[in-house]
Amino acid sequence: MSDLDLAPRPDAAQPSTPAYTRLHDRFAEMDAINGAVGVLDWDRSTFMPEGGSEARGKQLTALSLIRHRMITDPALGDWFNDAAEEQSAGKLTDWQAANLREMKHRWVHETALPEDLVAAFTAASNTGEMTWREARANSDWKLLEPAMAEIIRLNREAAAVKSEALGVSPYEAMMDKFEPGLREDRVKDLFDDLAAFLPGAIEQAMTHQSEQREPHDLGASVHEDAQREMALELMKVVGFDFNRGRLDTSLHPFCGGTPSDVRITTRYNEADPFVALMGVMHETGHAMYELGLPGDWLDQPVGSARGMTLHESQSLLVEMQAGRSWQFMQWMAGRARHHFHREGPAWEAEELYRRLIHVKPDFIRVDADEITYPAHIILRTRMEQAMIGGQMEAADMPGAINDGMKELLGITPPDDRRGVLQDIHWPSGWMGYFPTYTLGALSAAQLFTSATAERPEILTELQKGSFATLMQWLGEKVHSRASFHATSDEVLEQATGSALTTEAWKAHIGRRYLGQGDQG
Amino acid sequence: MSDLDLAPRPDAAQPSTPAYTRLHDRFAEMDAINGAVGVLDWDRSTFMPEGGSEARGKQLTALSLIRHRMITDPALGDWFNDAAEEQSAGKLTDWQAANLREMKHRWVHETALPEDLVAAFTAASNTGEMTWREARANSDWKLLEPAMAEIIRLNREAAAVKSEALGVSPYEAMMDKFEPGLREDRVKDLFDDLAAFLPGAIEQAMTHQSEQREPHDLGASVHEDAQREMALELMKVVGFDFNRGRLDTSLHPFCGGTPSDVRITTRYNEADPFVALMGVMHETGHAMYELGLPGDWLDQPVGSARGMTLHESQSLLVEMQAGRSWQFMQWMAGRARHHFHREGPAWEAEELYRRLIHVKPDFIRVDADEITYPAHIILRTRMEQAMIGGQMEAADMPGAINDGMKELLGITPPDDRRGVLQDIHWPSGWMGYFPTYTLGALSAAQLFTSATAERPEILTELQKGSFATLMQWLGEKVHSRASFHATSDEVLEQATGSALTTEAWKAHIGRRYLGQGDQG
Repeated sequence: MSDLDLAPRPDAAQPSTPAYTRLHDRFAEMDAINGAVGVLDWDRSTFMPEGGSEARGKQLTALSLIRHRMITDPALGDWFNDAAEEQSAGKLTDWQAANLREMKHRWVHETALPEDLVAAFTAASNTGEMTWREARANSDWKLLEPAMAEIIRLNREAAAVKSEALGVSPYEAMMDKFEPGLREDRVKDLFDDLAAFLPGAIEQAMTHQSEQREPHDLGASVHEDAQREMALELMKVVGFDFNRGRLDTSLHPFCGGTPSDVRITTRYNEADPFVALMGVMHETGHAMYELGLPGDWLDQPVGSARGMTLHESQSLLVEMQAGRSWQFMQWMAGRARHHFHREGPAWEAEELYRRLIHVKPDFIRVDADEITYPAHIILRTRMEQAMIGGQMEAADMPGAINDGMKELLGITPPDDRRGVLQDIHWPSGWMGYFPTYTLGALSAAQLFTSATAERPEILTELQKGSFATLMQWLGEKVHSRASFHATSDEVLEQATGSALTTEAWKAHIGRRYLGQGDQG
Repeated sequence: MSDLDLAPRPDAAQPSTPAYTRLHDRFAEMDAINGAVGVLDWDRSTFMPEGGSEARGKQLTALSLIRHRMITDPALGDWFNDAAEEQSAGKLTDWQAANLREMKHRWVHETALPEDLVAAFTAASNTGEMTWREARANSDWKLLEPAMAEIIRLNREAAAVKSEALGVSPYEAMMDKFEPGLREDRVKDLFDDLAAFLPGAIEQAMTHQSEQREPHDLGASVHEDAQREMALELMKVVGFDFNRGRLDTSLHPFCGGTPSDVRITTRYNEADPFVALMGVMHETGHAMYELGLPGDWLDQPVGSARGMTLHESQSLLVEMQAGRSWQFMQWMAGRARHHFHREGPAWEAEELYRRLIHVKPDFIRVDADEITYPAHIILRTRMEQAMIGGQMEAADMPGAINDGMKELLGITPPDDRRGVLQDIHWPSGWMGYFPTYTLGALSAAQLFTSATAERPEILTELQKGSFATLMQWLGEKVHSRASFHATSDEVLEQATGSALTTEAWKAHIGRRYLGQGDQG
């Protein structure tokens, strides 16, 4: 088993960059494994009968182990050294050089942690997830606390090791896996700014909202089949290519599969069809990013989405910026009346718009509206920094969540189920992911603002149910660039003329919720 | 990459049989890869959008390469030697010993062929399949002939090498992969006997049939949804466990997935619902074998189905022996009237029975009825023996098919599309598989005859729409034994008291088609 390169490579018999080529081929093979995992994961959430879950678990474990062996193969160290020389000798194109950087980034992350830490992490995550389900069902933090203490301990250890390997702070090392190059001072600046803005804005939005009449009831339930028909139309309107993807049903909506075969899912609520419809818009935004990645690089790291911030920006741009805009609602309301055979005031554009931008501070992050959502994220990010930094222990977490919600949203969760136990991220061992949700929302606003400034017809097109110009702009400025740029800030700079700021988002919130300027 | 055993094995720290345990673990990991391949293959035929096919091809190639590396790992030779000593020292249970035999059997097949022959085979099969599609569309054998010549040459080479490795004749070596231990003299005895029986039987059956009134027309088409409802009921009646499997739609029906998650498919013909219904019965027979394999051994070679003969016997037993029996038709006709909202003579049990056992010699193997089918198989088996033996070349094949059909069925294909070009097996490089179709049909009759002799209530149960006792008997005598016995003949001996003969099948044909004794 000393040679993994048995695959014949007829057209690369004498490459001028043998080391880069070996890396390229190894990552292509890992990409094929990733693709298999993507389909197996999708199937698990959509069509797999319950009895298949043990075998599926073994399949996914085997593939993940194989992938791990492929990237931790000691030979890769030499290949990276030799490929760096090939780059110095000017033998790599710009895209190849960017690809080499991305390959190395993944390799550093995969090889940084010693095997016994990885094994301890896997065990702790399994225990954490299982215990979390029970703790949440019973709203009993004490059940989870010991497992969480172990997860914090392991995260600190991992952060320390990765901090050393990457030359960044421990929390930066944790964020880096999801959002390469993200720095704590950037997060602090952006989030402090938002934290100062939010309480006033939320209060103002609530007042503004209370001055308007409550939307009418939607009436009788809408059959799942009709919702699905309209969801498919929305996907088509956004530009989803059904030759390269599907829509199915699952308990937790997601976007999976591979860039040439994107599988998105939704779930249907017959009492409120807009849960599924806006959820599908959200996942379609993710899907459009995947579908727009450059075809020549799909099996390489440089051909992947830039990071979770930009990924979330694409879903929020489609769902929040464009999908819930006053303009798009003019078209969507008519389609809803048509698909659902409804009439009456509740189904007019103006009412649907107000329904879809309703603000209400609540305990649950995933149910939060656009304006209160960042408060949940800022709180969690601060807590993660304290946990990694050693200022917060598992026992402190319930109080920290409750105090933070009081401070940022003015409400206190009545129990741990609606407080510290609501999210699966931490019990699963994940830290460093949360900030990307809000950085994505800010990026979405910044990209949409630039797009509509450069191409004002985008707004009139939305009113007629077309995303054509918007998607063309995003395809050029974001999707097709994949990971060619090293950071999402670089992508934003070339697309909008500036790294990420809060300005566009705050202006958007002002227009949509605070009665400032045009409806958006 | 020198060590594939990174997976922690906490409960086997000091096994008393280290070599056997290593082999066990390696084959378990390969089984997980096989399971992943099973789901990816199923998805490709059911839900995958067309644009995903290139990526899927890469995923399947990567997994097949990984599996190949795992089994051709040079370390396995030593493990097999050491495990043989563990067996000699009495350290293996009977099932472990049988498992060792089965692991070694797979290993010999995978390692027998040199890498360059495997690569040449893959290339020739790809060319063969592609060329076959064009040749068949144009009914032009000359297009395929050069590719077929290469495939014959490579099959002879492979047969020679495997013959040496297995210590059997070259054609036996080719059959051995699908039906371990099958000998040419057995095939010759059984097939010569059938070849002598068939022409007279077919003539007699046609005469018998012509004395009866033609069945009435089925009338208006039956919607796919209603067919699916009834297909699901049939699966349930046979005993399919929907917690461990699914029914979906595909162009070519198959049974795939894994033993704990069996995915069967069908396709619907609105003009004749019985195409799908009997197809589903067939695949359900395959599925019941998989679902009945012993749970403790599912990830090991000994836990797999014994071979293609017994697998086909299970599908034909459910579809042909039980599913088309006069008894089951008493129940099924009523269910068809109910599901399809039909009445009238065409939907009475007696007429449906005659429709489902209609005999008509035809050119196309896959459309053949139960009694003419073996003629197609005998012809193909003789041709394969001649090809491997060096007495037949590609240029001889169209004539051989036409002459053989004339001799065995009394008809001559009007063109190559309906003659030598009808099957994909040979262009895909497969030889040695065909005999198992008819050996499976003979085995089905032998098993059903023994089952109903031992448990006469099986027939009265079928009349009431129950497969309970039949499936219990098969579960005990066939399914749960998996590959514990070395050959299908051994399984038949313990189940029916005799190795395979043609007697039960001929008696069945006599009863059902020639008016001899009770209707069957």
